[in-house]
Amino acid sequence: MNRIRETAIEADPRLPVIRTTRDFTATPEQLFRAHTDPALFARWVGPSAMTTRIEHWDARTGGSWRYVSERDGTEYWFHGCFHEVRPDRMVQTFTFEGDPEGVALETLWFQDLGGGRTRLRAQSLVDSFEGRDAMLRSGMEVGIDEGYAKLERMLIDDAA
Amino acid sequence: MNRIRETAIEADPRLPVIRTTRDFTATPEQLFRAHTDPALFARWVGPSAMTTRIEHWDARTGGSWRYVSERDGTEYWFHGCFHEVRPDRMVQTFTFEGDPEGVALETLWFQDLGGGRTRLRAQSLVDSFEGRDAMLRSGMEVGIDEGYAKLERMLIDDAA
Repeated sequence: MNRIRETAIEADPRLPVIRTTRDFTATPEQLFRAHTDPALFARWVGPSAMTTRIEHWDARTGGSWRYVSERDGTEYWFHGCFHEVRPDRMVQTFTFEGDPEGVALETLWFQDLGGGRTRLRAQSLVDSFEGRDAMLRSGMEVGIDEGYAKLERMLIDDAA
Repeated sequence: MNRIRETAIEADPRLPVIRTTRDFTATPEQLFRAHTDPALFARWVGPSAMTTRIEHWDARTGGSWRYVSERDGTEYWFHGCFHEVRPDRMVQTFTFEGDPEGVALETLWFQDLGGGRTRLRAQSLVDSFEGRDAMLRSGMEVGIDEGYAKLERMLIDDAA
């Protein structure tokens, strides 16, 4: 297990899977809303230096999404579909359009820890170890950790 | 590799993946239509003894689907979303609602062999070897092979 700052990020030795875990001072409902409300999602997703604009967003079971993140004038487009959206679990697909043949199946779990704390677990599954390891080398870990730090601050600010 | 009748079905030793391959006397366009037109799809999908009714169908990138298959008065519901629908490749998610936590990421490729022949390759990816092997034990292989036999007859009948 590789602990970068606050987020635990683990590459499974037997499966082409990346798992991340982070605990938040928030309820499961708040975290769920931060992942389904497009205005909230755009505020925290991605590395610190990127800004994100939602192009399409329908966070329901059977819906889909597309957004663009921008840094130094370069745009990075992403899209996918929502396989399942429910308060304790979201399952969705994910493609970075710079690598259009690549697809990840992502699962998020919102686990109530009690006392206003929630564990967010995420799993990203792809169909090769090479693809998984390339995702890790691309700076994904930093992007996740910086995004989650923004999410944490947003939850604190919006509660204040 | 396990060859059952006409369909090659392979469980990957390193990945929680099932791959199937079958060649059809049809063009890529005909096979693509058989996978995207709901009336055609319902005619061939699943084991011989099952009949299928489409509940919801939007075979576009970002769309979704749900259908029910019935045998001897018992209904089996399935649903998923279409991550990508394009003439040479479809990527979609798949859940059997009797196992609602299970999700597969399915990819289909329509490969033109020339001379009116097309190779259909399919890959089903899940997040555990146990889940993959349970799918194989569930009779999935027979269902795929019988479904593809119906598809082959349908393509011949509709061309006649």
